[in-house]
Amino acid sequence: MTAATVPDELWNSVGSPTRRRLLTVGVEAFAVRGFHGTTTRDIAARAGLSPAALYVHYRTKELLLFDISRIGHTESLVALERAGAGVTDPVERVRTLVAHFAERHARHHALGRVVHYELPALTPEHRAEVVVTRRKIERVFRDTVAAGVAEGVFRVDDVADAGLALLSLSLDICRWWGQGRPRSPRRLADHYANLAVAMLGAAAG
Amino acid sequence: MTAATVPDELWNSVGSPTRRRLLTVGVEAFAVRGFHGTTTRDIAARAGLSPAALYVHYRTKELLLFDISRIGHTESLVALERAGAGVTDPVERVRTLVAHFAERHARHHALGRVVHYELPALTPEHRAEVVVTRRKIERVFRDTVAAGVAEGVFRVDDVADAGLALLSLSLDICRWWGQGRPRSPRRLADHYANLAVAMLGAAAG
Repeated sequence: MTAATVPDELWNSVGSPTRRRLLTVGVEAFAVRGFHGTTTRDIAARAGLSPAALYVHYRTKELLLFDISRIGHTESLVALERAGAGVTDPVERVRTLVAHFAERHARHHALGRVVHYELPALTPEHRAEVVVTRRKIERVFRDTVAAGVAEGVFRVDDVADAGLALLSLSLDICRWWGQGRPRSPRRLADHYANLAVAMLGAAAG
Repeated sequence: MTAATVPDELWNSVGSPTRRRLLTVGVEAFAVRGFHGTTTRDIAARAGLSPAALYVHYRTKELLLFDISRIGHTESLVALERAGAGVTDPVERVRTLVAHFAERHARHHALGRVVHYELPALTPEHRAEVVVTRRKIERVFRDTVAAGVAEGVFRVDDVADAGLALLSLSLDICRWWGQGRPRSPRRLADHYANLAVAMLGAAAG
């Protein structure tokens, strides 16, 4: 599982190799049994460390989840912005953003489950910090919808709701991916990109 | 929270009032701390029972989750089919099904989180049983897309992917509902119904 658990360069900002390994096994453990169902002992064992050695890097399990969540969200925003950089036509931009996000959530569904579904397990302070980045990700989608509406290319009842719908469309893939229904991430991403463009009232194809 | 945790008549098939209460507090507990993070002691305490009294009704925590999941899925399918009964025009049918499912997942988001996100916590046998009902729910959406494609009303790349996309659109609401962004469930459902129809390549409004 390790090879595909997270995007290759996700932990690049983390200097310590041990810490990078802990972040990856943390994703694997939390994705399978949930944050509350995982013990620090489980995580140490998966990483081949003693509980004391784990403690050197993460004094609590919540701090490990916070690092996963913080870095996961930040890198997701960076990758999304990079995918959409220079793509200004609203139709092409929606297609690009949704395809990118859909493919990411198919390929790295375990990471997706942890960062999206374990959010309530963070302390209020840590959650508030992550939510700032979540809102920026939402805004990337919402602003793109708004730009298309302003140009008369898209027609929706409510820009914010349509932005959330774009996000749901690509994000929910991390829930069902791997439960049967085998697919190519790339093909699914292309199909979803077309659905997204049509959803906003733009002419399809 | 109790009043709105589950639809009014969800546990009607369950004879024992104590068992109905256990099912509801089970939903509340699992929604907040996850299946693995909840003890049978937590559930007994929430229901005002001793652990021994809980044991009379559910010998394991997994059996309680299985009952929640089994009944939750079955009733969701029944309600979905009831909502769509007699609605044969594909456009109207998509609108009706998506609006129903979206409103249900907004109003009963805790139930949604438990039945959708705790599925991996079931035993393989129990999960297989629930998945049969899940596939029927998916089929309701997929068959509606297929009917619209056959009538030349909808145009999509892939019927199965479009069916999953309809499901994701309405289901993912249970993830973000209650995390800020206050909305009327009914208005959101209407907006999503319009987005869904447009997504399938039908003329909007």
